[in-house]
Amino acid sequence: MRSAASFKLGLSHSAATDSTWKVEAVKQVEYHVIAARNLFAKDSTRLLDGCSAASLHRGDRRLIIIDANVDRIHGDRIRGYFEHHGIRASFVPMRADETVKEWGSAVRVVDAMNGFGIDRRREPVIAIGGGVLLDIVGFAASVYRRGTPYIRVPTTLIGLVDAGVGVKTGVNYGMGKNRLGTYAPALATFVDRAFLRTLDNRHLSNGLAEILKMALIKSLDLFELLEIFGERLIDDRFQGSSDELDTAATQVIAESIHLMLEELQPNLWESCLERCVDYGHTFSPTLEMEALPELLHGEAVAVDMALTSALGYLRGSISEAELDRVLTVMRHLGLPTWNDVLSTPGVLGAALADTVRHRDGRQRLPLPVGIGGHHFVNDVTIDGINSASALLNRKSDELRVRETSVTKVAS
Amino acid sequence: MRSAASFKLGLSHSAATDSTWKVEAVKQVEYHVIAARNLFAKDSTRLLDGCSAASLHRGDRRLIIIDANVDRIHGDRIRGYFEHHGIRASFVPMRADETVKEWGSAVRVVDAMNGFGIDRRREPVIAIGGGVLLDIVGFAASVYRRGTPYIRVPTTLIGLVDAGVGVKTGVNYGMGKNRLGTYAPALATFVDRAFLRTLDNRHLSNGLAEILKMALIKSLDLFELLEIFGERLIDDRFQGSSDELDTAATQVIAESIHLMLEELQPNLWESCLERCVDYGHTFSPTLEMEALPELLHGEAVAVDMALTSALGYLRGSISEAELDRVLTVMRHLGLPTWNDVLSTPGVLGAALADTVRHRDGRQRLPLPVGIGGHHFVNDVTIDGINSASALLNRKSDELRVRETSVTKVAS
Ligand SMILES: NC(=O)c1ccc[n+]([C@@H]2O[C@H](COP(=O)([O-])OP(=O)(O)OC[C@H]3O[C@@H](n4cnc5c(N)ncnc54)[C@H](O)[C@@H]3O)[C@@H](O)[C@H]2O)c1
Ligand SMILES: NC(=O)c1ccc[n+]([C@@H]2O[C@H](COP(=O)([O-])OP(=O)(O)OC[C@H]3O[C@@H](n4cnc5c(N)ncnc54)[C@H](O)[C@@H]3O)[C@@H](O)[C@H]2O)c1
Repeated sequence: MRSAASFKLGLSHSAATDSTWKVEAVKQVEYHVIAARNLFAKDSTRLLDGCSAASLHRGDRRLIIIDANVDRIHGDRIRGYFEHHGIRASFVPMRADETVKEWGSAVRVVDAMNGFGIDRRREPVIAIGGGVLLDIVGFAASVYRRGTPYIRVPTTLIGLVDAGVGVKTGVNYGMGKNRLGTYAPALATFVDRAFLRTLDNRHLSNGLAEILKMALIKSLDLFELLEIFGERLIDDRFQGSSDELDTAATQVIAESIHLMLEELQPNLWESCLERCVDYGHTFSPTLEMEALPELLHGEAVAVDMALTSALGYLRGSISEAELDRVLTVMRHLGLPTWNDVLSTPGVLGAALADTVRHRDGRQRLPLPVGIGGHHFVNDVTIDGINSASALLNRKSDELRVRETSVTKVAS
Repeated sequence: MRSAASFKLGLSHSAATDSTWKVEAVKQVEYHVIAARNLFAKDSTRLLDGCSAASLHRGDRRLIIIDANVDRIHGDRIRGYFEHHGIRASFVPMRADETVKEWGSAVRVVDAMNGFGIDRRREPVIAIGGGVLLDIVGFAASVYRRGTPYIRVPTTLIGLVDAGVGVKTGVNYGMGKNRLGTYAPALATFVDRAFLRTLDNRHLSNGLAEILKMALIKSLDLFELLEIFGERLIDDRFQGSSDELDTAATQVIAESIHLMLEELQPNLWESCLERCVDYGHTFSPTLEMEALPELLHGEAVAVDMALTSALGYLRGSISEAELDRVLTVMRHLGLPTWNDVLSTPGVLGAALADTVRHRDGRQRLPLPVGIGGHHFVNDVTIDGINSASALLNRKSDELRVRETSVTKVAS
């Protein structure tokens, strides 16, 4: 990590032949991620005073952009909360899913800010919803008057552990995912797993893929938590219906956020291209597009991680037992380990080439070292990937056969 | 100015009750402003090697977004330059004036970047045009893939000394000027006054208003240069047709850029709201909108500076002789010192209130102290402004009468 003293500030001027000026400046950025239980329970004050940079007082006005689905399910409770605490909240429900993650939706947020007559120094916008809603509102806020503060309340698991804790905003444009966007941290994110009560299984699994990613590259402890509690956490929707599950849910989410922030903080603007949080994101962008709409983002990430774990095994950086453990956990978390698009000729090579282009000409591929470690490699060959793919195909078949027979025995 | 050592980086975590995390990070920003003579003369290599962060090599590809008017007048020469140096340049001419300073124009730039298949780490977009074109391209580039580098070649005087040297980008939205935008410095700006040869008088005067602004608040020397050479520089279109005028043109532009950068560098993101470069921009936004389309931006700024100079005289911070000198120079530069919108009841009060809202509840009004100095005040009253306005009305009339009689005597 760069030390503060190495930053440069100043104006230098040379008038040797013609004048030249060099401007150097440094921007301080600060943001907060705050875990909260039942954020909108009437007696909770976490949202009001949990973050001094984003405090709320009786009589304050706030503009609230909320995912229409979340509004339908949780809207009454949330409105009741603001009323109870004397906050004059204006709600703007907005449809938010991947198909409307576009500039037009960001414009609706801009119109809402205009209509509200927002005071950009005193009235942060509050965004409540999944990753799509958070990314749209974050983008709109970041360009409104060159930057209007906003607060995030994620309501999906992806939101809680990923979209809600980083600084990236954006919308899709044309064929390009997140083609338009900014790096703009929210003042604060309030992480409340109570919302997960109403999220469907598939979106829970989708979020668990990103949690598993952090575990595979950084933490055997987190992996073991997922191994032991993963299935039960899904069944329980992270609601902590027993003490044991409550502790596990808290730990899994907090640990995942912590590991993620550890990686993001020194590289907030992604100037370093060797990012271990890119694990699972080498082949998945292409897989996701090719298999559209079959695979959710986290599902494509899972297939990528299965493939690169197999590759790691063939290259000797993880054992066969570890590989099997990884694949088994994926299945338990409701994630695919295989998709037939992997055997479409040319897809894997094209995916690798595309990633290399985005990583400035080198592979910089994070691969697992055991469970909970990683290294970066630049020498992956198409043959290597194809062998890994063949191995994965076989192993996934075996897993499926075993699951089917277990189900048969059980029934 | 903040010293580098006071910046904070790190991740802190507390798990007292529920977990909270604070992320602190610091972003280093650097950009260059490079004076160049005849940038597109075939033997000039300034554009190729004048800035190591933005160098160009034979065989490189570049996407060039160019103001359609500039393309019509200077396009052949510019294309010839790139051909001569073996740069594979793709030109996208774009209509650029205030009426099309909107998101739709930024989208055209995005489409051009998509179509070009830009490599955002190696192929900075080059923007050639006035303030409008630069602001649009800067905005589009800054949100394309969360930030694509760009290079500016301003072609108007406002561009050379103002729009081209700061870090603000943006487009208008609805009634809001620059309502959508970012802070995003260009890698480099190449300042070439050869372009001014084809700019009309009114746009030259418009740019001189911003130069006069820097002089009034920061430099008696620059003011005196304007006093001596202002009219002749306009007639000569800053082309340096004599040694004396050449030196004066270089000095006026370089000094103005330098004074501007001195103010911008420590406050690049405008976190400090006491900005002396806001001089002339207290009443002018409202005047500009009220008098639309009669006043160009710089003309409205001139009227504001005339008004606040009169106010400064009434408050005792400048002498009557200094006030007269200021007004006389304005007239010589082809700028208005008065507009009847000043006597529309309520306009000045509304303008002040609007500015106070934008400056977080305080006036923070820069007022001249003598010529070349300033201070900030917070106690301006409507009565005070109205008196200044009445005084200015009288003085402007006298000036006009004197000019007319001088013209009569001369003819
Ligand atoms: N900015 C980042 O760093 C970052 C990181 C990861 C993902 N993302 C983005 O996040 C998006 C995916 O987010 P997502 O997985 O949250 O999808 P999503 O936002 O589309 O939400 C999934 C669905 O669940 C609904 N929903 C949300 N909360 C609910 C709740 N509590 N109960 C019931 N239904 C609910 C939504 O309306 C939607 O239909 C992608 O666009 C991705 O690019 C961004
Ligand atoms: N980003 C900033 O910090 C900043 C600072 C000041 C002004 N601005 C913005 O700049 C804009 C005003 O810029 P402007 O005054 O350059 O206006 P402009 O860009 O509209 O240019 C004025 C006219 O001159 C034409 N033109 C440009 N160069 C020419 C040349 N060399 N010869 C002949 N014609 C030429 C243009 O096509 C246009 O019709 C405003 O929108 C303002 O908000 C931005």
